[in-house]
Amino acid sequence: MSEHIYKQFDADLEAIRSGVLQMGGLVESQLTNAFAGLKNADKALIEKVIAGDHRINLLEVDIDEACSQLIAKRQPAASDLRSVLGAMKTVTDLERIGDEAKKIAKAARRLHSGDLPYSPRVDLGHPAALATDMVRKALDSFARSDVTLAPVLAHMDDEVDTAFEAVTRQLITYMMEDPRTISNSLETLFIAKSIERVGDHALNISEYVIYMAHGRDVRYAGTAVIEQEAAREIKKQD
Amino acid sequence: MSEHIYKQFDADLEAIRSGVLQMGGLVESQLTNAFAGLKNADKALIEKVIAGDHRINLLEVDIDEACSQLIAKRQPAASDLRSVLGAMKTVTDLERIGDEAKKIAKAARRLHSGDLPYSPRVDLGHPAALATDMVRKALDSFARSDVTLAPVLAHMDDEVDTAFEAVTRQLITYMMEDPRTISNSLETLFIAKSIERVGDHALNISEYVIYMAHGRDVRYAGTAVIEQEAAREIKKQD
Repeated sequence: MSEHIYKQFDADLEAIRSGVLQMGGLVESQLTNAFAGLKNADKALIEKVIAGDHRINLLEVDIDEACSQLIAKRQPAASDLRSVLGAMKTVTDLERIGDEAKKIAKAARRLHSGDLPYSPRVDLGHPAALATDMVRKALDSFARSDVTLAPVLAHMDDEVDTAFEAVTRQLITYMMEDPRTISNSLETLFIAKSIERVGDHALNISEYVIYMAHGRDVRYAGTAVIEQEAAREIKKQD
Repeated sequence: MSEHIYKQFDADLEAIRSGVLQMGGLVESQLTNAFAGLKNADKALIEKVIAGDHRINLLEVDIDEACSQLIAKRQPAASDLRSVLGAMKTVTDLERIGDEAKKIAKAARRLHSGDLPYSPRVDLGHPAALATDMVRKALDSFARSDVTLAPVLAHMDDEVDTAFEAVTRQLITYMMEDPRTISNSLETLFIAKSIERVGDHALNISEYVIYMAHGRDVRYAGTAVIEQEAAREIKKQD
């Protein structure tokens, strides 16, 4: 590419990357609001999350379209092409995190719809905070092309999975002790499942960052390979 | 593109499309085997599904890499580019269907691990057959670039969702009547949830077919828009 075309490509790519981060910020606040709405029985906030998901879907479609136009117009190769394809993959996972936030808000709406105030018997605060932090770190790693965060996210994802299993066991105990709690316990279980999936999507995003920066597709390769790629970067910085 | 380059591009694209269909066939058989393993307590088949997921993951990575190389090498635009990007999106959803098949097999393994034979109280045969049929139709629509199947899949997806809700209600009733069934009922519930997600992914694939053929991104646009795009095609054929 000539220098002129290069500059145009860089400007277009930068616009796409800002779009991804803007979408990411929105997804993060949807998630935070869904958890706050659930915790504080804040019905207005819950409805806001449910209504807000549509905007995230539109952003995904827009960014996808911008990426495909950029490829057609500037014909990038090598790391430039990976940056564009990585952005496309990232928005897919961000949109799915948005979906999970909406599902959590819908479960919160059902839980808080009864005449009696609902107070959860299982505290989802810890896994919820972990998953939200994972999304924040995934966006950080995207923004700074920081491959060293992927192993951190892999370990946090294990923690979220462990928390999900603990919540499931606890809920089964409550349901057996008092079958009247079954419906509400299932809602809580599905929220926990959503939290677990948010962790998976955040980890995916940090894996795309490795693909974009190093050209290595580390999906399904296991934590050892992710650690190896992160170590390459830390070594370079020394 | 010159005619020579065009022919090369076509040959490369055809290889990618065959790869997607091969992966699709594998995913379909993983799903069929997971359901058969569950129904017939066939432990060998269940283990085969769990072990087989790895191959699907590798196919996704391979096809993704072939797509990105094809873009870099041949610099396709317009409908050619959409064909490549559509293949990349399709394999993402196929891989997720593979994940659900593995999850179903793992739940089947837990259900059939006890000393007593397990016989399900809720029949998942109908939603399972529907979801498998959706995957088959989605692959058909990809193979023949047939946009007229998307509205059919949208309606089938509604049916799967309704079946999932019915199964959930039935399971809640059983759990309340006999709390000893709670653990097994939850496994069944997660299998039903997996079936519901398979339907979502199959519908996604048929939506990409519209994007590839017509250049219109119909995701999140609703069934009316999908029907409109299918009608355009039917009109053309008259």
